[in-house]
Amino acid sequence: MPDTSLPNTVDALVPTAAPTDRRRFLRDGALAALGAGALAACSKSNAAPAPSTPTTPAKAAAAAPVALSPRAKSDEMDRMHEAGIKAFPAKTEGKGNQLLDPRIDNGVKVYELTATELQWEVSPGQRVSAMAYNEQVPGPQIRVREGDRVRVILHNKMSESTAIHFHGLELPMDQDGVPFITQPPIKPGESFTYEFTVPNGNSGSHMYHSHHNATKQVGGGLLGAFIVEPKSPRAIEKVDHDYVFILNDGSHGYTFNGKGFPATEPLTAKLGERIRIRFMNEGMMIHPMHLHGMHMTVIDKDGWAQPAPWKCDTLNVAPGERWDVIVHCTNPGTWAFHCHILPHAESDHGMFGMVTALVVQK
Amino acid sequence: MPDTSLPNTVDALVPTAAPTDRRRFLRDGALAALGAGALAACSKSNAAPAPSTPTTPAKAAAAAPVALSPRAKSDEMDRMHEAGIKAFPAKTEGKGNQLLDPRIDNGVKVYELTATELQWEVSPGQRVSAMAYNEQVPGPQIRVREGDRVRVILHNKMSESTAIHFHGLELPMDQDGVPFITQPPIKPGESFTYEFTVPNGNSGSHMYHSHHNATKQVGGGLLGAFIVEPKSPRAIEKVDHDYVFILNDGSHGYTFNGKGFPATEPLTAKLGERIRIRFMNEGMMIHPMHLHGMHMTVIDKDGWAQPAPWKCDTLNVAPGERWDVIVHCTNPGTWAFHCHILPHAESDHGMFGMVTALVVQK
Amino acid sequence: MPDTSLPNTVDALVPTAAPTDRRRFLRDGALAALGAGALAACSKSNAAPAPSTPTTPAKAAAAAPVALSPRAKSDEMDRMHEAGIKAFPAKTEGKGNQLLDPRIDNGVKVYELTATELQWEVSPGQRVSAMAYNEQVPGPQIRVREGDRVRVILHNKMSESTAIHFHGLELPMDQDGVPFITQPPIKPGESFTYEFTVPNGNSGSHMYHSHHNATKQVGGGLLGAFIVEPKSPRAIEKVDHDYVFILNDGSHGYTFNGKGFPATEPLTAKLGERIRIRFMNEGMMIHPMHLHGMHMTVIDKDGWAQPAPWKCDTLNVAPGERWDVIVHCTNPGTWAFHCHILPHAESDHGMFGMVTALVVQK
Repeated sequence: MPDTSLPNTVDALVPTAAPTDRRRFLRDGALAALGAGALAACSKSNAAPAPSTPTTPAKAAAAAPVALSPRAKSDEMDRMHEAGIKAFPAKTEGKGNQLLDPRIDNGVKVYELTATELQWEVSPGQRVSAMAYNEQVPGPQIRVREGDRVRVILHNKMSESTAIHFHGLELPMDQDGVPFITQPPIKPGESFTYEFTVPNGNSGSHMYHSHHNATKQVGGGLLGAFIVEPKSPRAIEKVDHDYVFILNDGSHGYTFNGKGFPATEPLTAKLGERIRIRFMNEGMMIHPMHLHGMHMTVIDKDGWAQPAPWKCDTLNVAPGERWDVIVHCTNPGTWAFHCHILPHAESDHGMFGMVTALVVQK
Repeated sequence: MPDTSLPNTVDALVPTAAPTDRRRFLRDGALAALGAGALAACSKSNAAPAPSTPTTPAKAAAAAPVALSPRAKSDEMDRMHEAGIKAFPAKTEGKGNQLLDPRIDNGVKVYELTATELQWEVSPGQRVSAMAYNEQVPGPQIRVREGDRVRVILHNKMSESTAIHFHGLELPMDQDGVPFITQPPIKPGESFTYEFTVPNGNSGSHMYHSHHNATKQVGGGLLGAFIVEPKSPRAIEKVDHDYVFILNDGSHGYTFNGKGFPATEPLTAKLGERIRIRFMNEGMMIHPMHLHGMHMTVIDKDGWAQPAPWKCDTLNVAPGERWDVIVHCTNPGTWAFHCHILPHAESDHGMFGMVTALVVQK
Repeated sequence: MPDTSLPNTVDALVPTAAPTDRRRFLRDGALAALGAGALAACSKSNAAPAPSTPTTPAKAAAAAPVALSPRAKSDEMDRMHEAGIKAFPAKTEGKGNQLLDPRIDNGVKVYELTATELQWEVSPGQRVSAMAYNEQVPGPQIRVREGDRVRVILHNKMSESTAIHFHGLELPMDQDGVPFITQPPIKPGESFTYEFTVPNGNSGSHMYHSHHNATKQVGGGLLGAFIVEPKSPRAIEKVDHDYVFILNDGSHGYTFNGKGFPATEPLTAKLGERIRIRFMNEGMMIHPMHLHGMHMTVIDKDGWAQPAPWKCDTLNVAPGERWDVIVHCTNPGTWAFHCHILPHAESDHGMFGMVTALVVQK
């Protein structure tokens, strides 16, 4: 059974290094994997800045349009690319998808969610208008078990009405969260309580999100993972780490778990470990996720076991879909992990948006 | 074997109620399913109009741009959302995908199709320029059986040439419908006769559509379902209702079977029944179809059985693809059923386009 | 085992006809398949020109906007459609995806690639700015075997830096080709050598392409097929012809193997033969590939065997994905083979972009 108490952060997964210097960790991991070869050769431009704090050369180029030689243009492009990589994983304000511990009320797992409008820092210095549950984008991660009795209390502190749909759960109609069909909208200032028993047989990777004015509200951040642990996990589900990977592409740009590169979080594992990744697409576009260095074994679709596991290195995830994969981390290194629609991941200014890395430590 | 003589309309499937008041039926179905709970609470705004007949408050807001308070704006948005739901299923002129009975000529099933240009009402009051077979968008549904001898006579009464491709059928080349490769184009005023034996082993959900100037002609409505019943149906194919669900996204907007919400038709079933849904994408975009409340069991792709059935709640349907699913209707209620690319389904004015409902009656 | 020495050209596959007249071959193939029926009826407008050389009526229409009657407009549209078909397969300068023979150096297969900027003729008369390996778009086809030792030497003769990622190969990190993570960028004028052993178990359809400024560089043409033959092919892999089919949709328009219709290359086979098609998507959009007349049996995804083969006639290929299919060529004729996103394949000026044909000769 996956250890669901594990927080979903890199710091917690780094075994020995001081967790305060993530960049050093990543470089060390990469260097260890490389044996100090190629990356050392990359260190010529160590002074390169993060993209959000341009240095004199970049500024000069922008301010005074002096004609650059082709080689100078190429070097300037490389500098911007390097700066992005060196900035990864960049710190930003706010962190979504944090595991929410329920309050237990007479055997019922009680989750309180408060919806507000706020500013969200997607990548360093880039703040966008957002709607969030508990000030997180994605909202807090809810993890329950088949057969659990669950209560979700939503407080609407936004300026427009809302409602929650539990996407993938097969609930009684009055818990389905579709205004004017299954409930009235939850008006500004109001609260609403959902309560249901998670059906047996309905385990897996599900989602909760707004089902009112949803193009705006889900695009704005009113979404989160709703994971149902099975009572009897299959052997293939017994993994060392269990990652949630929510894709979005609305007004916040191209994001993984609410952040764009270089503020995306790397996934980490030790050599030989097996990890599970739960892809969830809350956006409007497909995102074919490509992992370098190792393949993914697809086990579940929308929480349902596929008839047989199958392998790939690029997995097309469409809006509303969830796909669960297992990666056996047999190849040490820092592996790019990105959407393969290239304009979602890289421009001539360097990588951005839907890029992160899987770091496999020796 | 599916009862293919069943018309594809809600009215015919409603067992007792007078078929003239569809809205009442839907509300009753929902109420029955709910036990009068949540939906009763929604009835505060019963006077809310259909979107096409704005009432005084909406008109006033539109005519005189008085600054509304945030709460008034929110309430106005909710009123528009409610009006859309209350209008569903809305009446419009014209109905596509009606089963076409063949004339039998010496053992040959003969279908006559006439292509014309006309105006088509997609949703109440929204008329678009269309091209249609027999004045239907989608064209009439053709249902034959493996091994049948079939004749399709096309009369072109449009101002441009055309031809029919039988998408998914493995026919002799001269029946394939590609102008200048397999036949000359069928000029305005001309007729053309296709005649072929449906190959054994080629059963399932296929399509017929124009293969000339097809971006315009298929986008404009020259398309329909061509379903081939197998001689020996599998056990899993024995269902209570058999629905065709054609997706399109061209100049007519986002449509199911030629209509946009609230003019889309609900699917209906009684509790415990099993239904088959044949998704067919005739558009230019993917449409990941999401069903609330129950899962879908995918059995066929392009008319071919998948190696094993598999389950999901969100099925990505790409242009040209057909996917057949079974839904075991075990959960009573009115279940939203929509494309999960949210801007194909909802705006701040409420639901539109690719939205319908599966109504499971107790 | 597939005969990998077979060149990927139509000419070489035409058994008896002089290879200089491709158009005649195609017409003959079609006629043979048809038995002279429908196509003869199409020959009314034999004088129709290729789209790039408009004749007097078309010129007149363009130069002097005389009001055409509806029928004249329709006929003019048909003439443009016919001209496109008649021009197929059109000759253009340059041919990509040519099998590259390695130099053997002490048991190592050595491939030299030179990246340059050039003009590429996508379809007759349409030249676009491109980046290319060895002046080919796609770059030369590399075919090795599991366990081979491979050296790829890249000479960068472009004005910007680059690097090669071997997409789908599970290599040591320092061979992964991601600048600033696994190696420094390869600057203009520099060379870089990749060398690795192709892992056992990692056979199948893979790709190589730029991983630096990749939206521009891969869109511009820095991409190619990297195919790994298995040591022990499965029975289903034993085919008569093995085709690579690279999809792209960047600044070059909609292309198959670097060319748009009518300059795309037809696939050919004799009646009863089995062919393998390796779809690879190097673009930014999905492309659901539709074959007329016969179905495809899907065997591999990203080089990995699917749990069981499955059948379809429309296969959705997403960016970064590779799908391998088998077609048993049991239906003689000239079969349209195209992306089913219709605006990628046809306009009112006729077919263009992602269209080709599979010609099955009796």
